[in-house]
Amino acid sequence: MTRAELIHQIKTKRSFLCVGLDTDLTKIPEHLLDDEDPIYSFNKAIIDATADLCVAYKPNIAFYECYGIKGWQSLQKTWAALPKDCFSIADAKRGDIGNTSGRYAMAFFDEKTSGLGFDSITIAPYMGKDSVTPFLDFNDKWAIVLALTSNEGSLDFQNFENKEGLQLFEQVIDKVNTWGTPDNLMYVVGATRGEGFIKIREHAPDHFLLVPGVGAQGGSLEDVCKFGMNKDCGLLVNSTRGIIYASKGRDFAERAREEALILQKEMEVELLKAGIIS
Amino acid sequence: MTRAELIHQIKTKRSFLCVGLDTDLTKIPEHLLDDEDPIYSFNKAIIDATADLCVAYKPNIAFYECYGIKGWQSLQKTWAALPKDCFSIADAKRGDIGNTSGRYAMAFFDEKTSGLGFDSITIAPYMGKDSVTPFLDFNDKWAIVLALTSNEGSLDFQNFENKEGLQLFEQVIDKVNTWGTPDNLMYVVGATRGEGFIKIREHAPDHFLLVPGVGAQGGSLEDVCKFGMNKDCGLLVNSTRGIIYASKGRDFAERAREEALILQKEMEVELLKAGIIS
Repeated sequence: MTRAELIHQIKTKRSFLCVGLDTDLTKIPEHLLDDEDPIYSFNKAIIDATADLCVAYKPNIAFYECYGIKGWQSLQKTWAALPKDCFSIADAKRGDIGNTSGRYAMAFFDEKTSGLGFDSITIAPYMGKDSVTPFLDFNDKWAIVLALTSNEGSLDFQNFENKEGLQLFEQVIDKVNTWGTPDNLMYVVGATRGEGFIKIREHAPDHFLLVPGVGAQGGSLEDVCKFGMNKDCGLLVNSTRGIIYASKGRDFAERAREEALILQKEMEVELLKAGIIS
Repeated sequence: MTRAELIHQIKTKRSFLCVGLDTDLTKIPEHLLDDEDPIYSFNKAIIDATADLCVAYKPNIAFYECYGIKGWQSLQKTWAALPKDCFSIADAKRGDIGNTSGRYAMAFFDEKTSGLGFDSITIAPYMGKDSVTPFLDFNDKWAIVLALTSNEGSLDFQNFENKEGLQLFEQVIDKVNTWGTPDNLMYVVGATRGEGFIKIREHAPDHFLLVPGVGAQGGSLEDVCKFGMNKDCGLLVNSTRGIIYASKGRDFAERAREEALILQKEMEVELLKAGIIS
C-alpha cells in the first residue's frame, strides 16, 4: 500500500485505528476452542466486526510462532482474510545481517515464496543499516523501525545519551531517515509518554508513526494527537487488548466492534480538530 | 544444556566450533533439489558429517521462515536431527515486550507447544529488560544477547557513546549482566575486530561468547582466542559458509567435514596453548 492510499483510507474511514491481533488461546472465548483453528476463527470474527472502523491490522508474530507449524497456518489464513483496503503490519521485530534480513523480507513480503504478503514489518534497529535496508527494496512495502517503545524496559537503552545530549532513539531516527523516505519508513513510538512525541516530531516530522500503548498500557489518545499528529495524520494508533478481549463470551466480536467504534469516534474528533477531514 | 555440560563437550571434542545452518536453496547441490525436503536432506548430511567435530549447531531462522510452513517443517526436522551432545542455537534475534517475548521463548524452547526445543536463542536487546528476561525463565536454556555484531552496519548504533566514553554495546553487556548469570546468558561478539574482545572481556570475563565472522567474514581465529578466550574456553566460534558451502557437488558433506576438521584442529591447538585440555 502506498502512502497516498493509506492517507486516503484514513480520510475515508475517519479513523487511524490499527487493531492488534495478538491472539492468545487462553484469552479467547471458550466456545471457539473446539474449532479446527480457533485462532483463525477468532481473528476472522474480529476482522469482520471491525474492518470498516480501522485502517490497519497488526498480528504480533510471536503469538503464532509459539504454536510452530500450526501457528504459521493460522497466520497465513489470517493474513489472507485481511481486507485489501486495510494496511497490514507483521509485528515481527526482525533484523539480522543484510543477506539474512533479505530472507526475513521474503518471509513477510513475498507471498509466492512464503505464503505471506504483508504491507509492512516492524524492525529492531540494533544491527544497523544492512539489517534495515533489505526491507526497503520492495515496492509499496514498509519498514516500521522501533524508535521509542512503550514497554517497561524501553528506557534501558533507548535513552542512552551521547555527549551532545542526543539519545539513542533520536540517533536511530536520524540515521534510519537517511536509508529510506516517509514513503517506505515508519517508526514505532509508544503512547505512554505523550510529550515524547514533541522530540520525535523534531526528528521525523513527515513520517507515519505506529503507536502502541493506548488503552491497556495507559497512553492517552488526546495527548498522542496533540503532540504527534501531522498534516497527513501521520499516526497509526494500535489497540489490542481493549478491543479483541473486550468480552470472553459469545458476544466477543460485537463487544470488539463497540470498543473499536468508541476509538474511531475519538479519532474522528481529532481528525476534524486538525482539519484533516471535514 | 548446562554450562558444565557445554564445557565438558568442548574438552571431549577438543573443539569449540559451531556450525551455522543457514541453508539456502540457491547454494546447495542441485542433485538435492528433487528431494522431498532438500533443506532437511542437506542439513542432515552436514550434521552427520560434522557432529564429532563441533559442539554446537546454529540454524538461522530467517532461512527457514522465508519458506513459510514448508520452511518451518524443515526447521523442526533439522532440530530433531541435532545430536543431543551438541548445543543448539536458534539464531532468531527475537525480542519484544515481556508477555510477547514469553511467546517467542515458547516458540523456540517449549517443544510440547511449538515442536522446537532449542538450548538457546539469540536476542536483540533494543527493547530492554522485559524483552530479555522471559528467555531466562527456562531451566538449562540460554539467552544469547547481541552485543557487538560483525556486520557492515554494526557500528551505526552499537558504538554510540555516552559522555563517560561508554559505548552502547558495553552498556548492553553491563545491564544484561544484572538480569542473568554466566549460566544462562551469552553474548554475540563478531570476530572481525580481534582487539574488540579486550573490551568485551572487561565487561563479561566469565560469559560464553558466540562469535560469528571467522572465515568468510574475515575474522582471525587466533586473534579471537588471544583476546577472547577465558579459563573455561568461553567461546563458541561459528562458521557457516566456509563449511556448508565448501562444495556444490555430490561431495559437499565430505568437503564440509574437511573444512570443519581444519577448524577443529586449529581450535585444539588453541585449547592446548591455553591449558584447557592436555
